[in-house]
Amino acid sequence: MSGKQVFEVVFDAEGVAVGKMRNEVTLTARAPFTSVNMLATDEGPFQGGEGTAPTPLEFFLTGLVGCLMTQIRAFSRKLKIEVSDVKVRCRAEWTAETGTVGPYEGSPRGFHLDVDVVSDAPAEDVARLVEAAKRGCFVEQTLAVPNTVTHRLRINEGAWTDA
Amino acid sequence: MSGKQVFEVVFDAEGVAVGKMRNEVTLTARAPFTSVNMLATDEGPFQGGEGTAPTPLEFFLTGLVGCLMTQIRAFSRKLKIEVSDVKVRCRAEWTAETGTVGPYEGSPRGFHLDVDVVSDAPAEDVARLVEAAKRGCFVEQTLAVPNTVTHRLRINEGAWTDA
Repeated sequence: MSGKQVFEVVFDAEGVAVGKMRNEVTLTARAPFTSVNMLATDEGPFQGGEGTAPTPLEFFLTGLVGCLMTQIRAFSRKLKIEVSDVKVRCRAEWTAETGTVGPYEGSPRGFHLDVDVVSDAPAEDVARLVEAAKRGCFVEQTLAVPNTVTHRLRINEGAWTDA
Repeated sequence: MSGKQVFEVVFDAEGVAVGKMRNEVTLTARAPFTSVNMLATDEGPFQGGEGTAPTPLEFFLTGLVGCLMTQIRAFSRKLKIEVSDVKVRCRAEWTAETGTVGPYEGSPRGFHLDVDVVSDAPAEDVARLVEAAKRGCFVEQTLAVPNTVTHRLRINEGAWTDA
């Protein structure tokens, strides 16, 4: 990316462990707007949970599909390319393979998105809108690149160390 | 990844557009378990929504934090490294920059995770558990690599074309 910065997006997410496998995650938006929401994840019996909420992967995929759909509708207005309906379907696949440190390691196999649009606009305009939405969708752009993901670890309220 | 496959994870996510910016996403797990859940996203006034649900980025980050926390607890049992409490905090940043196709393009700036563990286990075992959880977390592993993301587009129920 070499464009001029338009705005920044900053979120803090803090998860606490409750129940057997349930996590309650508080999301605090810092920019470009401020908000606080809580979302809970759980696991079914496969992972030893109690099924009180959807799994983390379902939240992740909702973020992906919802982000692209949101960008299509938001950019529809900005680009003046009318869309009267949109549906997005995503097939997502991962493999768990034997690892060297833990029981298994995760590996993404790909994300295949079908974008189903109803519009009176010329087909080339709709295609341009969808292309713009893909580039504007923060989640898609995150999937497209190897990201900087850093970790710190603290045990029993001791010092933070890089992990 | 070059390990032996342990299991596959397959999800379908289908989003429909309702309201101004609200999306209702139906998640269907195909493997290794089967389930159906629905999660809704919306936007606040910043993006022209009505705030009936959290934003897609909040779902995405809940997936990330929830996945790592789930793996820590799941692998705690499998590796017999006791953990009596775990909290995870994530700072996530993106930039929107001027684009060539649409109003702006998204660019991830990084994900910084603080893992806060309470445990009577030796510190090196806790560190090994967290490392195993990072590798076992499907969302983290998805962020770590450039992913295959493909699109097809259909307009007014015509033919599907690659987009």
